[in-house]
Amino acid sequence: MRLRQRCEHFNALHSQISAQGINPYFRPIAQTWGTEVEVGGKRLIMIGSNDYLGLSHDPRVMDASAQAVYHWGTGPGGSRFLSGNMVLHHHLEERLADFVGKRHVVVHVTGFSANLGALGVLITPADTVLCDRENHASIFEGVKNTKARLATFAHNDAAHALKRVEDAKAARPDGDVFLVTEGVFSMSGELAPLDEIAAIKDAHPDVVFYLDDAHGLGVFGRGGRGSADHFRITDKVDFIMGTFSKSMASIGGFIASDDEDMLRYLRYQSRTQIFSAALPAANTVAVLTCLDILAKEPERVDRLHEVTVRMRHAYRDIGLRIGNSSSPIIPIIIGSDEKAFFFSRALFEAGIFALPAVYPAVPRGQALIRTAYMSTHQDRQLDVVLSVLEKLAKEFRIRECDLEEDPQSAAGEEEGDAPRGKLSYL
Amino acid sequence: MRLRQRCEHFNALHSQISAQGINPYFRPIAQTWGTEVEVGGKRLIMIGSNDYLGLSHDPRVMDASAQAVYHWGTGPGGSRFLSGNMVLHHHLEERLADFVGKRHVVVHVTGFSANLGALGVLITPADTVLCDRENHASIFEGVKNTKARLATFAHNDAAHALKRVEDAKAARPDGDVFLVTEGVFSMSGELAPLDEIAAIKDAHPDVVFYLDDAHGLGVFGRGGRGSADHFRITDKVDFIMGTFSKSMASIGGFIASDDEDMLRYLRYQSRTQIFSAALPAANTVAVLTCLDILAKEPERVDRLHEVTVRMRHAYRDIGLRIGNSSSPIIPIIIGSDEKAFFFSRALFEAGIFALPAVYPAVPRGQALIRTAYMSTHQDRQLDVVLSVLEKLAKEFRIRECDLEEDPQSAAGEEEGDAPRGKLSYL
Repeated sequence: MRLRQRCEHFNALHSQISAQGINPYFRPIAQTWGTEVEVGGKRLIMIGSNDYLGLSHDPRVMDASAQAVYHWGTGPGGSRFLSGNMVLHHHLEERLADFVGKRHVVVHVTGFSANLGALGVLITPADTVLCDRENHASIFEGVKNTKARLATFAHNDAAHALKRVEDAKAARPDGDVFLVTEGVFSMSGELAPLDEIAAIKDAHPDVVFYLDDAHGLGVFGRGGRGSADHFRITDKVDFIMGTFSKSMASIGGFIASDDEDMLRYLRYQSRTQIFSAALPAANTVAVLTCLDILAKEPERVDRLHEVTVRMRHAYRDIGLRIGNSSSPIIPIIIGSDEKAFFFSRALFEAGIFALPAVYPAVPRGQALIRTAYMSTHQDRQLDVVLSVLEKLAKEFRIRECDLEEDPQSAAGEEEGDAPRGKLSYL
Repeated sequence: MRLRQRCEHFNALHSQISAQGINPYFRPIAQTWGTEVEVGGKRLIMIGSNDYLGLSHDPRVMDASAQAVYHWGTGPGGSRFLSGNMVLHHHLEERLADFVGKRHVVVHVTGFSANLGALGVLITPADTVLCDRENHASIFEGVKNTKARLATFAHNDAAHALKRVEDAKAARPDGDVFLVTEGVFSMSGELAPLDEIAAIKDAHPDVVFYLDDAHGLGVFGRGGRGSADHFRITDKVDFIMGTFSKSMASIGGFIASDDEDMLRYLRYQSRTQIFSAALPAANTVAVLTCLDILAKEPERVDRLHEVTVRMRHAYRDIGLRIGNSSSPIIPIIIGSDEKAFFFSRALFEAGIFALPAVYPAVPRGQALIRTAYMSTHQDRQLDVVLSVLEKLAKEFRIRECDLEEDPQSAAGEEEGDAPRGKLSYL
């Protein structure tokens, strides 16, 4: 289908969904207090943010970031490569290296840019890249351009990953094999079995293990050191990628490794690094301050888990189908895309901000509402959320018992090669 | 060459250059006052920044940005698509649309992301993309993934571009033809002949004209409205891309167009938009404030041109070879990569921050020092710069008269398919 046709097709769907009042995306937030936001004159409890530690509204983070604006100016004036490199970036790199337990770090202006830049340099056409099927778009984009062979392994299936490694080494003995997965998956909230995946390195030490820990950093591990620390397998990961737009209350990303030469090579060769403006001081200092706070107040991470465990249990008590989440991201599996849109609107009307993920972000018929919790959520807010969810779950017939009675409504259809569904916005 | 070898090769060169004390890249700035910076305890006049209007240190921009931190928090908490979309983003889109003279705008978190996201959606495999040979890396990266046919036309050569358009339409009658160029080229400082390029649309109205005006915005056009406005050809450009990391004292980027449906399609389909965290409030408000200031104080743009014209004339008086620059970016063409590194170090020692661009960023033997001026540069600073340049130009024998006597030193060798030169850092 040509561009103009695809555009018309999309706009027709958009009009239809918007006319029904169920378009949940690009909702303009008029004001925010972290755990609550105002949209269209309505105050809502936010359960859709990635600011897991609630540090974006911590007065110390805000103060330091605002002071950085006055001290450094608002814009970086150039790339780090040329005129925008501040000592702040190097301080942050040292602090992050210490935090995640790797010797060296390179900071990027976004997480997307970190993945794109690093994978684009590391991977050559002779290589094979093995990705968990549910890896983030920035990983697939990063691999796409390399001309390497891309293969996926079944989600969180270390045995399948091992088999793929063996296949790849047999098929392309002259190339490197990259094993790329995430610590915590952004939609399902599942933690990867990193201990099992890292064990592949015991038999195949030459496999390059690249871990995207965007949603694990600040959430898992000692004091929020990340998923690799949680499993105590940091030394087996060759590259840890992380972002600042989740627990670190900012934007940006980084690549960490013990291999100084390789990281220097990445620093000078990643096109997204060389050809992008540097992360401004305000955003850089926010991350530095989050690291200070995390070092002093590891109880914030404990509180996050307390909230998470409470909500996960309560969801199960209500009878919601939540998959295998073990993180602050708890999906509510709804079924059809359309039902998920209506459910999200019902939440909005009841004073709750949480958004659907539909095909192709999730398999067909597995549309879900992505909920995510913060250490700063107060119990009274969580009480409100649970009472609304209990009521709506019955109304929408999305409880486990409803879904069993009416299997069609959340059939978990296999994802095929069919064209994008009529409500696919992604 | 395998990854490990390439990495070792690079690190050997890096060590060699660093041992000579001439590595000019990733210099850590310890403090900045906009037109002056401190590096390694030394105060330098900055003539390498893209903050052309000097607004990064304007108290009004800094105040508004710092206030935004307190009002909105430091991080966006999510993508614009999901939980990070603020009314601020929509205000900025409206203001930018008005400013550049297009009806609709989509704001991105970086300029790289804007190009990558937009080109990735707009261009399909059946299409042909015609790029000026000197286009920015983010454009080439954006095109690379589309599987479209990429062809280049000679730099700033509208006649050659027209020929390429005709060839492309004949060869692939079923595909669209995209014509992609920049308003101002970031290394040479040259303005594109946008009037001539736009005239191609008269004969071929179906050609899609995409303009990257990163370095033209805030610099050319009425009150800094950009290069298309300068040539009064805004209505002939289908998509204007711009960035905030130059004159707009921030980071981020945007795509502007009159075609609302197409921009909505881009907004919902660009992977870099959907899968990246939103531009934080501090960075967004900085741009809004710059637009306020530009509306009230168009004389800032006039002052920028006054500085630019003074320096261009003075460079010519000294006898420097500066190519065809007509913008605040004025390159000093040096010759060999190594000589450019030594020249940059000599500038540093004399109290001036300006960096070299070497092969493959520029053709072999055409290494240059990229200098760039700001409306906030004071005349006394410019006097110092000129006296240093006059002295060093003689010492390094880089004046036009020296180069003519000794043509080898800046021979302008043709760029071949040879592997990257020994000092190639890019």
